[in-house]
Amino acid sequence: MTDRRAGLFVTFEGLDGSGKTTQMRLLAGRLRAEGFEVVETVEPGGTTIGKGIRQILLDPANQHLSPVAELLLYFAARAQNVDELINPAVEAGKIVLADRYTDSTMAYQGAGRGLGQTVVRQLHEIACRGRDPHITLLFDIDVKTALDRAHARNREKAVEGFNETRMDEQDAAFYERVHTAYEQLVAANPARFRRIDGKGTPREVAMRVWNTFAPVLERHVR
Amino acid sequence: MTDRRAGLFVTFEGLDGSGKTTQMRLLAGRLRAEGFEVVETVEPGGTTIGKGIRQILLDPANQHLSPVAELLLYFAARAQNVDELINPAVEAGKIVLADRYTDSTMAYQGAGRGLGQTVVRQLHEIACRGRDPHITLLFDIDVKTALDRAHARNREKAVEGFNETRMDEQDAAFYERVHTAYEQLVAANPARFRRIDGKGTPREVAMRVWNTFAPVLERHVR
Repeated sequence: MTDRRAGLFVTFEGLDGSGKTTQMRLLAGRLRAEGFEVVETVEPGGTTIGKGIRQILLDPANQHLSPVAELLLYFAARAQNVDELINPAVEAGKIVLADRYTDSTMAYQGAGRGLGQTVVRQLHEIACRGRDPHITLLFDIDVKTALDRAHARNREKAVEGFNETRMDEQDAAFYERVHTAYEQLVAANPARFRRIDGKGTPREVAMRVWNTFAPVLERHVR
Repeated sequence: MTDRRAGLFVTFEGLDGSGKTTQMRLLAGRLRAEGFEVVETVEPGGTTIGKGIRQILLDPANQHLSPVAELLLYFAARAQNVDELINPAVEAGKIVLADRYTDSTMAYQGAGRGLGQTVVRQLHEIACRGRDPHITLLFDIDVKTALDRAHARNREKAVEGFNETRMDEQDAAFYERVHTAYEQLVAANPARFRRIDGKGTPREVAMRVWNTFAPVLERHVR
């Protein structure tokens, strides 16, 4: 045993357009400014191998990707992320911030695509082998605002030849199922989840994130 | 219910270099010549999505691909193959010939990489949902001969800029574990497996394949 401080694994969850990616970047910057070692990752695509998987998942030419194949690809990217990046960083005492993790798969594939929670939980056991987040920040926003934001962003990116619109072609009912699933995950894991109101400017939301995260960090470094 | 004849799902298994790919092509040709509708597929890579996954799996730059991520990628390709190709063809009464299926994963990842049978079986349930082969032809060859053949083939292909040598860099002990695992699979599934002696010329082996397969086909069409 070493007396080295254990790391912290924090996941950022919510609908596309909920602001979680922006907020993760802002929190990482603030933590680094305060002297913490921070590793940021994104699912899928936090590793080179994950990026290859991400291309398959988000290519609009792959609309015929079967729901089970999609689910297995997400977990393949996650297994690689856990082995290559998350576990070594947490074990080295760093703070790991992840943009999406298994809660996303529970919400999007388990509920959104109707694959169910059991299979997602089985795959989480196989792929992640006990690597669960210490804290999960859920960015709370209504479905309509999230969709408007995500659509606007993808239109902007499409101008630059960006081609990740496959998920974007889902209907509103899908996002409602995702939203409800997140609510159920919060209810089932009250100790792990922190709910963040996603409305307002990035700066306003960042203040809420800090107010929520600072006590966690304080307990962690104490 | 229709009176349409049900299809047949036949898998080809064995070590790299055992001759299974050549034999599958020869059997497909003969079956077509006799008027059967035949669909050939290969794992991974039998679909466009599978080809993308295959690139990730076999790229020598991905030596750091974690064993669990590799396992999940194989099953993602398989799930897509089952949904897009195997199930529709079998349900339409065709003969589907597959170059590798779950037995390969049992042998290469379960035994070769030491991930165990339980996790492979769980993933088979999730990815394949009951699509098991009616008949499996196992091409029997000693490890040394198989390795010599596979190495010669990969050297030839390397000249053409072919870059699928990642698996090739495994050691002989790995292939011994794979070989033993195939033996155990045959012992556990005697009704499904047909063992084919892989020694001799492609023509000699093709004769053995036909002698083994013809009775199966006869029962099937009767």
